[in-house]
Amino acid sequence: MSQQRTGPTDGPDFPDLPEATVARLPEYLRALHHLAEEGHDTVSSEGLAAAAGVNSAKLRKDLSHLGRTGTRGVGYDVTLLIDQIEQVLGLTHRRAVALVGVGNLGHALAGYAGFGSRGFRIAALFDADLGRVGEQINGLVVRHIDDLPAVVVEESISIAVIATPALAAQHVCDRLVAAGVTSVLNFAPCVLSVPEGVDVRKVDLAIELQILSFHEHRKSALTALPAVQKAKRGEAEVAS
Amino acid sequence: MSQQRTGPTDGPDFPDLPEATVARLPEYLRALHHLAEEGHDTVSSEGLAAAAGVNSAKLRKDLSHLGRTGTRGVGYDVTLLIDQIEQVLGLTHRRAVALVGVGNLGHALAGYAGFGSRGFRIAALFDADLGRVGEQINGLVVRHIDDLPAVVVEESISIAVIATPALAAQHVCDRLVAAGVTSVLNFAPCVLSVPEGVDVRKVDLAIELQILSFHEHRKSALTALPAVQKAKRGEAEVAS
Repeated sequence: MSQQRTGPTDGPDFPDLPEATVARLPEYLRALHHLAEEGHDTVSSEGLAAAAGVNSAKLRKDLSHLGRTGTRGVGYDVTLLIDQIEQVLGLTHRRAVALVGVGNLGHALAGYAGFGSRGFRIAALFDADLGRVGEQINGLVVRHIDDLPAVVVEESISIAVIATPALAAQHVCDRLVAAGVTSVLNFAPCVLSVPEGVDVRKVDLAIELQILSFHEHRKSALTALPAVQKAKRGEAEVAS
Repeated sequence: MSQQRTGPTDGPDFPDLPEATVARLPEYLRALHHLAEEGHDTVSSEGLAAAAGVNSAKLRKDLSHLGRTGTRGVGYDVTLLIDQIEQVLGLTHRRAVALVGVGNLGHALAGYAGFGSRGFRIAALFDADLGRVGEQINGLVVRHIDDLPAVVVEESISIAVIATPALAAQHVCDRLVAAGVTSVLNFAPCVLSVPEGVDVRKVDLAIELQILSFHEHRKSALTALPAVQKAKRGEAEVAS
């Protein structure tokens, strides 16, 4: 799912985090916000792990990277841990995001309530199609892609979402990078080339389905095995 | 991005693949289809790695799991490798997929051209909102969620996409599993509980942005470092 370039991040104020830990911190954050809303002041590592859908040993290891571990018998302070994760993720101020491509998917993304409540603000919408320019979506007017450089500066945008067709994506990406964008979330089904210092994450919906297809295939292959072999596999699974 | 349960898959006809390899196979497949369209019969591991956006050592290791390695000096046979990856991913027949929730995101997903060309067919659309039932999207009529059990059997559906609000997702998931669905792609921002034998992959768009936010934050922290420390980091990076 990701094309990542990771650099050294072991500064005194900036923990050196494994990429997989970075990917799980947002999950913990969401679970913690939910716990806070339900009135919990503290949470055990087991409780938080279950809420986030990971195992508790992994969670403890992840959080130990932040330099804070829970108190034995008390657990984690929910508010403190929220603050600390938001600090590390750079969510202490709301980040402005540009969205390029307002087809079906772009429309859905522009209206995605999850962004606003999670530290982001869609600050500008762009399209190359003059038929779409001027359209209003969720209170924002779609601008022409040629306005990109000016708007990126005006709105202090460093993150952009590409929701264009695959053929247009690299050109759009180049224009975004030229305008000063340094993080790109790519929904177009293609690999983007970016210069050093620019991060890209890719969301490809068909790839997610193909991974599930593998598991479907695996499950039907297991079902087709003779019973004896299945029993052996069962033992192996228990033993492992 | 994923909640996965992996079982033993080391049957004679079924390679035992690391989860990360499974996640990369669709990337290789897409790159290979692109190469085939461009008229290439063979491809070097370096060429395929570049097209898929991974390093070539990783690619060679991934493909060695499939039991086929390229011929030195010749590379991989594009058509053979496509066949083999499609076989492993279970893409030799087109899989029927149900989509539940036809709000903004559901509409976008129902119209996502990428599914059809990559081994999947959206076979049925569902919603709980009577105002949406009967609406036609891309030639499919939206059915009421109560029709789920009958349609899942009729259309031999084993994979479903959940594009409902978070609050409805677990209930929808339970109904899908009860109807016989064994793989779920979840777009709702919540963790789903499923019984053993059911695979869930989660796509949370805000989490992708939060991971990019971390990288933005890291980059600005590095920019803020004194020059000497930055120079040291540069050396460390070159050395690693």
